[in-house]
Amino acid sequence: MSAVPAPSDAVMSQLSPFDVVPWSHNHLARVEQALSGWVGHGAPAGLGDAMRYAVLDGGKRLRPLLVLAAYEAVCSGTPAAEVSGEAALRAACAVELIHAYSLVHDDMPCMDNDVLRRGKPTVHVQFGEAQALLAGDALQAFAFELLTPDDSPVPVAMQATLCRLLARAAGSAGMAGGQAIDLASVGVALTEDQLRQMHRLKTGALLQGSVLMGAVCGQAAPAAYQALSEYGAAMGLAFQVVDDILDVVADSATLGKTAGKDAAADKPTYVSLLGLERAQAHAQELLQDAHAALARSGLPDTRALAALADMVVRRSY
Amino acid sequence: MSAVPAPSDAVMSQLSPFDVVPWSHNHLARVEQALSGWVGHGAPAGLGDAMRYAVLDGGKRLRPLLVLAAYEAVCSGTPAAEVSGEAALRAACAVELIHAYSLVHDDMPCMDNDVLRRGKPTVHVQFGEAQALLAGDALQAFAFELLTPDDSPVPVAMQATLCRLLARAAGSAGMAGGQAIDLASVGVALTEDQLRQMHRLKTGALLQGSVLMGAVCGQAAPAAYQALSEYGAAMGLAFQVVDDILDVVADSATLGKTAGKDAAADKPTYVSLLGLERAQAHAQELLQDAHAALARSGLPDTRALAALADMVVRRSY
Repeated sequence: MSAVPAPSDAVMSQLSPFDVVPWSHNHLARVEQALSGWVGHGAPAGLGDAMRYAVLDGGKRLRPLLVLAAYEAVCSGTPAAEVSGEAALRAACAVELIHAYSLVHDDMPCMDNDVLRRGKPTVHVQFGEAQALLAGDALQAFAFELLTPDDSPVPVAMQATLCRLLARAAGSAGMAGGQAIDLASVGVALTEDQLRQMHRLKTGALLQGSVLMGAVCGQAAPAAYQALSEYGAAMGLAFQVVDDILDVVADSATLGKTAGKDAAADKPTYVSLLGLERAQAHAQELLQDAHAALARSGLPDTRALAALADMVVRRSY
Repeated sequence: MSAVPAPSDAVMSQLSPFDVVPWSHNHLARVEQALSGWVGHGAPAGLGDAMRYAVLDGGKRLRPLLVLAAYEAVCSGTPAAEVSGEAALRAACAVELIHAYSLVHDDMPCMDNDVLRRGKPTVHVQFGEAQALLAGDALQAFAFELLTPDDSPVPVAMQATLCRLLARAAGSAGMAGGQAIDLASVGVALTEDQLRQMHRLKTGALLQGSVLMGAVCGQAAPAAYQALSEYGAAMGLAFQVVDDILDVVADSATLGKTAGKDAAADKPTYVSLLGLERAQAHAQELLQDAHAALARSGLPDTRALAALADMVVRRSY
């Protein structure tokens, strides 16, 4: 089942008609092709195979889509330069590599010990733990390599800014830091503030970072950048609230991963803290916050970003 | 015991007198202070502790010294700009973070399963496997964050180039790739070419990368950059040949890690392939190659780089 009811008419009426399905389809095809062309080549055979297995043919690709949607929203007022289009595609793939590496390491026996991911055996099950560890490490390094091409017209200032944003989103004050709080929170009663902080880092930082990287590729003005940052924060937190809800209401087959594992692991979640109904209402509030931030951005066309926020909240897996 | 006899008079006579001890002492103090000021702050407590434990108070710091020595060699003909001095210090710390993270992950049970490193319990023994995995991941991200400051005058072109060099040296065509070949080589008879390729990636890429990053910080001219690249390749391979020798001739207390583990793990090494005497002679040849490359560089003062190559080959741990 879907995590959250459809948004109110008030929210919907702010959006012009936009069909996210063909938009996503076209952009996903570009991302898949780029990832397949880039990942794992030049690596020793076993490692390259594990890297490609971890990245290709799976996943919602939400983060790359956010990069591309933010880039297009910023460019919607001005003609898009070819150079920045390449930057956005590289950034889209780089955030997905960071996401993919985090899943590989998260699934390992010493972390969540999960055997199923996107309906397939996890990387350590398929290739062994040592290869999974190395594949994750190599994917992280490759994300930064993708952002710093020496044979491309992507401006060096943009390269440096993209690396900075990605490193912060991935590191100890971002995703890895959130995972460490998560580790320390098993069986611990958190306040809503503490839970929000954990999720802002663990999931929110990279989702927000994806939006910001897209904004940088489009060379957003400061006011638009700030509004997109607020969009990213609200949407990123909504994602995690919905994740917590789906862990309770969905089954493993639909999720493509093990359902009910938060409760089984005695992890604090929005559902355990607020109850199912209030968690659903909170996701809806965050969606409205995200839409409001887009309205404040002053950008002429933020329909793809709006549609992605809707997808995040209404998804069923 | 020392791995290799002293170099020939012919090599020594090329060098002007230079005391590497105070040079190293001064530069190590800067690196230690910088690392201590940078690493683990702003991270959740447990993660920050593990990151600092992995990085501080230990290690020869060879890679940071190579960065700083290469930077100074390039600057020796021209006045050093303050801005590039900061770049070199950041680069020196960044390569050490990559090295430190690789040791944390290498020591984990699914890799080498080592409990002793630099005479202390390894990170996973001290903090648990999950925290060790995250600390390694966060250290890698932080290396790229250090290279891309937004509040510093390090030129953005230099930031981007440093990220590119570090990502390549650390990734699947560098260190992580070499570790994957190492994994696949247990119990396998390698040719000398295959063994060299493994070591060029596993250890050599980051050592050579350190030299190149220092050269970039000093804005080396192409001819000097090329010569330093050749120095880095020879010195990097020499390091690994000597590592293989020390694994046989030294004891665990001197090494600060478990001796004899290559043979115990049935891993191919230069000693198993060439025998001890020819391995020692090979290290000596590589040292001479490194010195010859410095002579070709056209740089007026490469004494610190020369001394570091000597240290690499003559070290006893």
